[in-house]
Amino acid sequence: MNKKLKPSATRKHFALNLRKTRERLGLSQEALADAAGLHRTYVGSVERGERNISIDNIERLAAALGVSPASLLAEAKQ
Amino acid sequence: MNKKLKPSATRKHFALNLRKTRERLGLSQEALADAAGLHRTYVGSVERGERNISIDNIERLAAALGVSPASLLAEAKQ
Repeated sequence: MNKKLKPSATRKHFALNLRKTRERLGLSQEALADAAGLHRTYVGSVERGERNISIDNIERLAAALGVSPASLLAEAKQ
Repeated sequence: MNKKLKPSATRKHFALNLRKTRERLGLSQEALADAAGLHRTYVGSVERGERNISIDNIERLAAALGVSPASLLAEAKQ
């Protein structure tokens, strides 16, 4: 098992923003993955905060969703 | 050599924001690296857009600088 059991706050913000934006656009994880050139299971694990995603993949996902990379890292407004 | 010779736009934004914020605080690359638990040469290469930095390291650098991770990815205002 991984020593880092809890995803970082930033991973959690990214995961939540990614899922919310994807669902707002009516995209499945698979459709988003295809649009971003990534694998569906990878997108799923990112949305669970399990991946230490890189800046290049953050950019790919943001581009596929039509939002800025910065917006996907922002802390959600309650 | 790397096939991806040009850093992505997001890498460039991050690199520029990181350097500007670090210099505004009067920190050397070494002081920032120490505060973030990273190596000085790693911080230097990130500031040149050479690294596909991960979200956990983005968070470490943002925390060491006292800014939000999202702000470091934002496109610079001209």
